[in-house]
Amino acid sequence: MDSKATFGRDYLQHRIVSEFALARHIGIIVEAADEHKLVLQAPLAPNANYKGTAFGGSLFSVAVLAGWAWVTRYLATADIAADGVIQESTIRYLVPVEGALRATVVTPAPANIDKFARMLHRAGRGRISLAVEIHHEETLAAVFDGVFAAAVR
Amino acid sequence: MDSKATFGRDYLQHRIVSEFALARHIGIIVEAADEHKLVLQAPLAPNANYKGTAFGGSLFSVAVLAGWAWVTRYLATADIAADGVIQESTIRYLVPVEGALRATVVTPAPANIDKFARMLHRAGRGRISLAVEIHHEETLAAVFDGVFAAAVR
Repeated sequence: MDSKATFGRDYLQHRIVSEFALARHIGIIVEAADEHKLVLQAPLAPNANYKGTAFGGSLFSVAVLAGWAWVTRYLATADIAADGVIQESTIRYLVPVEGALRATVVTPAPANIDKFARMLHRAGRGRISLAVEIHHEETLAAVFDGVFAAAVR
Repeated sequence: MDSKATFGRDYLQHRIVSEFALARHIGIIVEAADEHKLVLQAPLAPNANYKGTAFGGSLFSVAVLAGWAWVTRYLATADIAADGVIQESTIRYLVPVEGALRATVVTPAPANIDKFARMLHRAGRGRISLAVEIHHEETLAAVFDGVFAAAVR
């Protein structure tokens, strides 16, 4: 069995919807989840504000769940029994999102992933910074930068 | 008629619920809204994660809506026909929130409020930084700092 396939879209979709009550209302869909790409999306309607654009809190939520999904997938594929949590993050809103909310994790540099793994193996806890980009069609609409921590159970 | 009473809890509760689709699912309640204090809260259940603590995206949403509510109330009481939007923000999660999500806006210094008003009157647009504190019981659990912009309609 290929563990990289096992911890793909269906796995993350199930975990997000079962572990975050609000994710169902946001309408999170895992669009892609493999070692090259992690993308979440959500429809506009349940996340719209009065202007017909995406609510900033919804954009943040889709981005933080994308980062959480990246960490969760990494820990699962590396067979590390740990949970990821967000510690701090910054989000900049560049242009309004007038359609689906689509968040793409910027794959971290291999050296940063290696450092995260070494910290977890040596100290039982580690931190990794992840950038998540939100696009509206082809335009970069928001940028999220978050620090995620994980501790071995 | 006292406009400060008019633009209080009921006014903001109505605006938040009617203008942000997700606010109903988060369960936003305007607890206090006057010139001294602006507090929003939401129950834990619809915002819980698998650990029984508040989802980071929900905490962010309650905080950003608290900031939006402060700006919206200020613009209404000052009779400025403008809409507030979030431009960028940082949130730091200090300790897990194991109960209601409660966000309190730190009232800006009068000089900052005056500057915001002057920018709006002179240029038709202005920006103001707002800090929002989230407490779990008596403990500071998360700190949100956001820059809100407003443009005269």
